[in-house]
Amino acid sequence: MLPDSAAVRARWARVQENLRAEGADAMIVVKPQNTFYLSGYTPMIYSHPVLVVLPAEGDPVFVLHALRAHSSRQTSLITDIRPYGRWAKEIGPDHWWEVLVDVLRERGLAAGRIGIEGEFLPYAYHQRFSEVLPEASFADTGAALMRARYVKDAAELESLRVASAIADAGMDAALAAMAERRSEVEVSSAAMQAMQRTWSTDHPDRLAMDFGNLEGGVFNALWAYSLVGDRVPMNSAPPTTRRPVDGEIQWTVIWTAVDGMHAENERSVAFGRLNAERQAAFEALLAIREETAPYLRPGLTCAEVYEAAREAYHRHGYGDYLPGRIGHGLGLGPHEQPSLGPNDDLVLAPGMTLTFEPNLRIPSFGGLQHSDSLVITEDGYEFLTHTRRDLIQV
Amino acid sequence: MLPDSAAVRARWARVQENLRAEGADAMIVVKPQNTFYLSGYTPMIYSHPVLVVLPAEGDPVFVLHALRAHSSRQTSLITDIRPYGRWAKEIGPDHWWEVLVDVLRERGLAAGRIGIEGEFLPYAYHQRFSEVLPEASFADTGAALMRARYVKDAAELESLRVASAIADAGMDAALAAMAERRSEVEVSSAAMQAMQRTWSTDHPDRLAMDFGNLEGGVFNALWAYSLVGDRVPMNSAPPTTRRPVDGEIQWTVIWTAVDGMHAENERSVAFGRLNAERQAAFEALLAIREETAPYLRPGLTCAEVYEAAREAYHRHGYGDYLPGRIGHGLGLGPHEQPSLGPNDDLVLAPGMTLTFEPNLRIPSFGGLQHSDSLVITEDGYEFLTHTRRDLIQV
Repeated sequence: MLPDSAAVRARWARVQENLRAEGADAMIVVKPQNTFYLSGYTPMIYSHPVLVVLPAEGDPVFVLHALRAHSSRQTSLITDIRPYGRWAKEIGPDHWWEVLVDVLRERGLAAGRIGIEGEFLPYAYHQRFSEVLPEASFADTGAALMRARYVKDAAELESLRVASAIADAGMDAALAAMAERRSEVEVSSAAMQAMQRTWSTDHPDRLAMDFGNLEGGVFNALWAYSLVGDRVPMNSAPPTTRRPVDGEIQWTVIWTAVDGMHAENERSVAFGRLNAERQAAFEALLAIREETAPYLRPGLTCAEVYEAAREAYHRHGYGDYLPGRIGHGLGLGPHEQPSLGPNDDLVLAPGMTLTFEPNLRIPSFGGLQHSDSLVITEDGYEFLTHTRRDLIQV
Repeated sequence: MLPDSAAVRARWARVQENLRAEGADAMIVVKPQNTFYLSGYTPMIYSHPVLVVLPAEGDPVFVLHALRAHSSRQTSLITDIRPYGRWAKEIGPDHWWEVLVDVLRERGLAAGRIGIEGEFLPYAYHQRFSEVLPEASFADTGAALMRARYVKDAAELESLRVASAIADAGMDAALAAMAERRSEVEVSSAAMQAMQRTWSTDHPDRLAMDFGNLEGGVFNALWAYSLVGDRVPMNSAPPTTRRPVDGEIQWTVIWTAVDGMHAENERSVAFGRLNAERQAAFEALLAIREETAPYLRPGLTCAEVYEAAREAYHRHGYGDYLPGRIGHGLGLGPHEQPSLGPNDDLVLAPGMTLTFEPNLRIPSFGGLQHSDSLVITEDGYEFLTHTRRDLIQV
């Protein structure tokens, strides 16, 4: 479900607290995931700049193209909407930066310390900010906003449950297609068709949507791809007409985004009998998962979970194949912080959502990886994806 | 189809000529569409930076995470691949910027004038460039690269024909669903399922892929959404369970991307008999299209085409409803330059690909818009999408 006004106000307050702690007077937010987080509104297509001005105190302001004035007034929980440009009878100043300067002057922030999203904000936008706000100073406060997103609220968790359920339906279809030895493209497409049907039939009130970039949009996000055998080490690549043969292992990756919240479900599947090397590797990976999962609980750091995995990889004789991380945050981005890797000291807390995906990439045959979506609970974790997690053989 | 080595070398040469004309010694390219354009390779997921260093003279270098070394060596037409980070046995320097500095020093460019993509390059990347290349100067050469992309090569046009054919199949399914008065979600999903089937059955050797952003990927791009009646002025919004009633007009938008090349097919459909206002508007829009299309030909500027449309809008009594543009470039981005608007003086040339989509947004009932994909030919244009373009009534 989409957030309500109280949920969005709590989001503003969390980000504002982080901004004040970093000495910022306001933040200009342009990343699609973040403007959605603060407003509950997406234009789907971001080719006209969409900006939220969030002062460290007080309500935010939405700066949008006149083309988006109508749709944002229908759904945005930021109610102070200032259009630029012209569209039918809706006429604002020609350029977004004129509106931006007006808003910051009105709030007494034109000479303030302004936060920006350093890892996203395009260079040309920053140049424009500096030009039209010559007395302001700018600082990267992207982390202040991202930290506020770590613990998910009720609306987000509920969306993630639906995203996970749709991903499971996709994986069921993929497993059925693999049992028929279909090609990578056919497995991927079967999963996507099944997810379309599940969305349209069971969850038509949900937004099956992802976020675009500055050039376009993402209208739908019920995605799958699949790689067979020696193609697995490509990790992510468009599927092909390659079909499996007995003794090979295929890896299917499913991502879904519902109301913008991302779930992930990935499974390795063995075709017929595996040789001894592959059988041993698959069993070891399952054991590594079993032995590491209990460390997914509040109070431990991400690095401590990774350390538990590292020990398990060594214990099972696969220390040379330890990946750089064994999971990552899930939310409005498909790959968010935190990272279940050696350098992330974030302490896990209830309401954080993650993937859990220890893997093996073994050049002689490809690789192995199950990935589940999960939420950290009061005393451990709860898997949100429910496809069987054993040595799947078809 | 994907470009071959000769096609990619011709792309390098076009961009290099533009770079030299702007006095740049090299360009650092990070935008996914552009790194694909120069290499024919996509990692699909861009969360690890992907950089092409294109000197103004000589062959480019690919800087990629070790995780992508294997897959890029399979398909990239840039053959000088320099990994950073570690992944299994593949070990490079820890950070992408270390490799970048090495490459620029090796080519004698560390104190050069370096081009960047101003409208895309994240602020933090630019900061890093400045820090590790203190003697270099930076200039926005995004337009130098984009101009090279205007005229499409044979591989791109062929991909766009397939993208258009899949979009047509999606629209056929949408029209059938609308004839049954299905909801926005059902129409959208029916179109997407049909496009999945068409891809998987008729074009399984094609990459049904789009480009991600710095946080994730886009595994598939056979997209549709649909808006009914008073929801049309939202322009782009997630579809809902809203169903049409007689006398309303529904607008369905289909985007496809094959081998990264984007097609667009949009149709307005009337349910039953329209009242006089709607009927007149629909007929006027069709007339405006008829009267403007002959201006789509080599030698005229985009602004001249728009001017022809402006006159047609006025002639038919809809001058107040003239949109800001009546079409846009199509290519590796869904909304590229050029723009069929009043301020684009680009001269149309054979091989340029565009949408043609004059529209009416009329508050009393919603709006009307057919959009087709087309290519400029030697003496005019050729439509690439083929769905009927008349007053469609179901």
